[in-house]
Amino acid sequence: MTSRARLADDAARLIALDWGTSALRAYLLGDDGVVLDERSEPWGIMQLPEGEFVAAFREVTGRWLAAAPELRALASGMVGSAQGWVEAPYCAAPAGVRELARSLVSVADEPLSIVPGVSQSGERPDVMRGEETQIVGVVERHPELAKDSLLVLPGTHSKWVHVREGRAERLTTFLTGELFAVLSTSSILGRFARDAANPPDAAAATDAFARGVLAARASAAGVTPLLFSVRALVLAGKLAAESSLEYLSGLLVGDELRCGLAAGEVPRALVGDAVLCARYTAAFGLFGIHGVPMVEHTAPAGLWAIAVHANLIRPTPRRVVA
Amino acid sequence: MTSRARLADDAARLIALDWGTSALRAYLLGDDGVVLDERSEPWGIMQLPEGEFVAAFREVTGRWLAAAPELRALASGMVGSAQGWVEAPYCAAPAGVRELARSLVSVADEPLSIVPGVSQSGERPDVMRGEETQIVGVVERHPELAKDSLLVLPGTHSKWVHVREGRAERLTTFLTGELFAVLSTSSILGRFARDAANPPDAAAATDAFARGVLAARASAAGVTPLLFSVRALVLAGKLAAESSLEYLSGLLVGDELRCGLAAGEVPRALVGDAVLCARYTAAFGLFGIHGVPMVEHTAPAGLWAIAVHANLIRPTPRRVVA
Repeated sequence: MTSRARLADDAARLIALDWGTSALRAYLLGDDGVVLDERSEPWGIMQLPEGEFVAAFREVTGRWLAAAPELRALASGMVGSAQGWVEAPYCAAPAGVRELARSLVSVADEPLSIVPGVSQSGERPDVMRGEETQIVGVVERHPELAKDSLLVLPGTHSKWVHVREGRAERLTTFLTGELFAVLSTSSILGRFARDAANPPDAAAATDAFARGVLAARASAAGVTPLLFSVRALVLAGKLAAESSLEYLSGLLVGDELRCGLAAGEVPRALVGDAVLCARYTAAFGLFGIHGVPMVEHTAPAGLWAIAVHANLIRPTPRRVVA
Repeated sequence: MTSRARLADDAARLIALDWGTSALRAYLLGDDGVVLDERSEPWGIMQLPEGEFVAAFREVTGRWLAAAPELRALASGMVGSAQGWVEAPYCAAPAGVRELARSLVSVADEPLSIVPGVSQSGERPDVMRGEETQIVGVVERHPELAKDSLLVLPGTHSKWVHVREGRAERLTTFLTGELFAVLSTSSILGRFARDAANPPDAAAATDAFARGVLAARASAAGVTPLLFSVRALVLAGKLAAESSLEYLSGLLVGDELRCGLAAGEVPRALVGDAVLCARYTAAFGLFGIHGVPMVEHTAPAGLWAIAVHANLIRPTPRRVVA
């Protein structure tokens, strides 16, 4: 066991951190970016008190760095925002692995660099942080998506990103996840579901979600005239109170798809959390779009590729022959 | 002074209560519904602990009832909702003063009745509570609006109501005010303005609001693809952080107008709070619609008219000649 553990330590090449608003996910990567170990903590930048970044970083990486002190760490996500630890100024789109690797920001006194986000200027300014690294991971693992493809990254802030020649070229952000969160917890639309004794069963939840998607799909003017129907349908006895938030989720996801698909381009991949991507897959099906592949866990692969381009990887040590 | 006070008490005919989610406004009405006295308390149904309705009612009406014990009170608004004091089941649209007066609900042990809300069934279920009484007040005071008109009642839940032959016939609710509240206080869109040292000056606020209205007007697909621009424009240096919520307000009001005006019908009146109506007037102007009159303080007139039809008015006493 000791020799195996030593082998694992020797093989460690990089610490990769996916450090977002709500969570910190840390990976110990070996040759070719293979995941040797991982750890997840609820230490997103909104959860950490100011000044706690150092402590969180040392706690989550301490054991790995103790075993291999020359390891470097690379982080992506909101940790590089103005509200994060050290601000990493946006890299202008189009941006891929080379542009990102050239623009890393080092954190003083720690063996850590941070990947910048990507900004789009012009008529429709937009930004992303964290997703640019996931996209690098997608392109690394699925080179067929590099040339010219539309990727959808569902989330608190869903991103629809056009990739061309391996670089994120254009993006649009939809506030879908955050709208759902604030409306369900803080508005009158969440009242019935909050007061319901039980959650809906799976079939009722699926039906209510689909009904919301179809209603949004049919509303060419947009979703806002439909929002109050989350409440009014329950009052009219036409929607079960406990299913009303599934219907709201369907309205919001359906509206995102209606807008995102308006230009006629079909997404080539759904990138992100499997449960959330499954919800989007169901919604795409209701728009007649089937078979969009899901790609998960792309942040470590993206961080590995950026680190390789930035020469952050610890050299392969000579193996100790026992 | 004593005789005058006695005269006022003698002249009192009805207590009218506009009792909504955030406030309780009480009026002592004399002949023809003239306002003799009024009082406003922050005792909306969401602010009052359960069971405090009796105490709030007695506190706000106590002095008036002590002087004229046979007075009756009539209330409209969310006090009659399932979350209120006593539920007054919805009256089906179309509904005007006669239908509402026939459907009052009495509160046990108190000299109080409650006006029901109005519900719309069919393809687009919708409801209102409180606005039906304001509309009765509008129609009483402006008979020219009774025959066939579109009224806009801005608010937490904006209502666009078609009135025909004096009755509310069709309605659409927009969540505009509540969306603004939850997004500005609880979402990332409010972050820059919350952190800003100072609010924008009046000219900057007006400009940012107008810019939002025009952006929403131009977005045929709806407002959701624009929401994140509240943040992205600030990051791009194209919108002052302290003006970003005025821009958001413009986006949301502009989207409401774009949807509400899609059928081609021009509103005949803006009903409600003067400050909020002025904001909508500015937005209508950006849609090329000018001169929509504002009508304020319609709840007491509506409550008076409903009370007359329901025979709740205290008879005119014989005047005491001094």
